[in-house]
Amino acid sequence: MTRTFETELDSLKQEILKMGAKAETMIQHSIQALVLRDRSHSRDVPELESEVNQLQLSIDDRCSKLLALRQPMAHDLRFIIAAMKIDSDLERIADQAVNITEHTEVLLQFPEVKPLIDIPRMAEIASEMLRDALDAFVEQDAATAREIVLRDDEVDGLKDQVIRELLTYMISDPKTIKPGLQLVLIARNLERIADHATNISEDVVYMVEAKDIRHHSEEMNEKGPIQ
Amino acid sequence: MTRTFETELDSLKQEILKMGAKAETMIQHSIQALVLRDRSHSRDVPELESEVNQLQLSIDDRCSKLLALRQPMAHDLRFIIAAMKIDSDLERIADQAVNITEHTEVLLQFPEVKPLIDIPRMAEIASEMLRDALDAFVEQDAATAREIVLRDDEVDGLKDQVIRELLTYMISDPKTIKPGLQLVLIARNLERIADHATNISEDVVYMVEAKDIRHHSEEMNEKGPIQ
Repeated sequence: MTRTFETELDSLKQEILKMGAKAETMIQHSIQALVLRDRSHSRDVPELESEVNQLQLSIDDRCSKLLALRQPMAHDLRFIIAAMKIDSDLERIADQAVNITEHTEVLLQFPEVKPLIDIPRMAEIASEMLRDALDAFVEQDAATAREIVLRDDEVDGLKDQVIRELLTYMISDPKTIKPGLQLVLIARNLERIADHATNISEDVVYMVEAKDIRHHSEEMNEKGPIQ
Repeated sequence: MTRTFETELDSLKQEILKMGAKAETMIQHSIQALVLRDRSHSRDVPELESEVNQLQLSIDDRCSKLLALRQPMAHDLRFIIAAMKIDSDLERIADQAVNITEHTEVLLQFPEVKPLIDIPRMAEIASEMLRDALDAFVEQDAATAREIVLRDDEVDGLKDQVIRELLTYMISDPKTIKPGLQLVLIARNLERIADHATNISEDVVYMVEAKDIRHHSEEMNEKGPIQ
């Protein structure tokens, strides 16, 4: 092994960023196909998904080799653990983008239900959350990462609004039921993408501060793990 | 540190099983509330979710301490990596069960759309997949784990069938649109639970055989990770 440990960690970071950039492109292209009602915008999504999947295998393989051969401690160990968790969230984000293209395929067989406003807005916020989470990962910026977690509520609120509005259309005109259902499912996909960006942000806080902030808001108090 | 490494790994395994049993109970109780149209059956779901979340924090904490202090190699290292991945899938399964109870809450405000057959069947298969995946984990049984992965298609097929049938109801009677949508979303939750059980099975194969079988069927050939 000729490379230094530091070089290896840096190369791992670059792979995560490459994977994240591909996942973000997948979100954008799948939403463009939806909004512009033209599936040619998302034609690169299957190939990107395959690349994202291969990157996940490659990153997990690097991480387990680094754990075995370098026996990292403290921050380096947390970095590698975070990398394995982040690649899993990125792979799931890519899956959700594929789902969006699949729902869009069905949707485009029907006339437009309504002009889309909240769904592109959800996609925009979720993409920003992902981009900022990856920036926070690179910059080791726990403060930004904590702030991203708070944005998840906005996406959840938009999703509820989208579903309420679509139900009104579906009830008043049965012809909108099939395409309306696809839009509901797309709103769910985007909500999930925001959840995964939230998970990535929580992993960044863990990596930087050695503090696990998951599940604390819902527990109402900051009790520690079960002993 | 007075405990042996082997004792610590065994205790980690017990925590995973405890977490898995709670997640499985959550699936069962959420589906009972749905099928029997009585939310009292799922009243323990929020408390179980909180316990599952705390177990995830506890397991991740144990795993990172074992990596730092014991510097495990080969099978032991793969076991710890698999444990961290499995706890994340179990936590997501618990989330999906919580979603099922939330959709059921809305659903029970409306008259019954239809007697449920395929949704309980999906829940049964998904629960079995989870139970068998955890058994395969305990028994180090890669053959069973590989077989579980194949069952995922059956759940996907049932989900498509459920959605097709519900759409027929929703189109013929607008009063079924709101509860029908909740049933569609519950079918999606169950599909996801089966996906997570599949992930756990893939982790078991990795742990036992040091072979990463994820993403291979969809790549059409068994090419290795990107170099």
